[in-house]
Amino acid sequence: MKAEHVNPFINATINVISTMAFIKPVPGKPFLKKDNKATGDVSAIVGMTGPSHATLSISFQKKAILAIVSSMFGETVDSLTDDVSEAAGELANMISGQARRDLEAMGVIYEGAIPSVASGEGHELKHITDGPKIAVPFTIADSTFTMELSFES
Amino acid sequence: MKAEHVNPFINATINVISTMAFIKPVPGKPFLKKDNKATGDVSAIVGMTGPSHATLSISFQKKAILAIVSSMFGETVDSLTDDVSEAAGELANMISGQARRDLEAMGVIYEGAIPSVASGEGHELKHITDGPKIAVPFTIADSTFTMELSFES
Repeated sequence: MKAEHVNPFINATINVISTMAFIKPVPGKPFLKKDNKATGDVSAIVGMTGPSHATLSISFQKKAILAIVSSMFGETVDSLTDDVSEAAGELANMISGQARRDLEAMGVIYEGAIPSVASGEGHELKHITDGPKIAVPFTIADSTFTMELSFES
Repeated sequence: MKAEHVNPFINATINVISTMAFIKPVPGKPFLKKDNKATGDVSAIVGMTGPSHATLSISFQKKAILAIVSSMFGETVDSLTDDVSEAAGELANMISGQARRDLEAMGVIYEGAIPSVASGEGHELKHITDGPKIAVPFTIADSTFTMELSFES
């Protein structure tokens, strides 16, 4: 995976969340992470294997995932329930799937593992690789989430 | 992946932690999880792809990972630092690698993604699949950790 392969993940994040939750997240500038940590309240993680090993993660602030899930479910969800974790995992799975289909059209084939979701206010998430870690902050109403793509160089 | 493929992961967990930390974890009886959650203070996650999609996770109680890491580093570590997360990720990577080599000898080929580590006291971890989730509790001195293997049926 290369830096130019990040765009399909940005587009898929916008498309999937817009389609599923009728909320269009606004991407900020992607940046190469110097430190190794993301902080979030709910983090969805999808391991990927292909030309290089990789991991997609999306770390949501509580407010961001609750806004998304409330909109998806059509009712106010105000705490980090199992359904919220499940929805975050499904979103990450769909984002990974859509991005991987776009990469496949570019001749780059990745497979995705089973998504995992860590839920706990203010947890930290690290990806263990010496390769690049690219982070893309997204804004949604008055909160944020961060999509991260780590891959072996 | 099938239920009988769990044994290489149990053996690898014992071997890697015994070798790296000079502490031999004692496995309890594997069980099929009915609910969908693990609770831990540090959880290492390795996505895997192959004949079916899968995920390995190891959720450590704080006391368990601090005992392991203190023994690995040869000095007392008493809080969940970045080095602790890094070590948990490396252990999971080695466990996944050793188990996958054993599976390969049985003709079952899996690849592993980049490991991710969630750190935060009392977080929950869920794997998003309808397939089986097999959990193996391990005891180490007076604390525990749980190895989980989720895979598509």
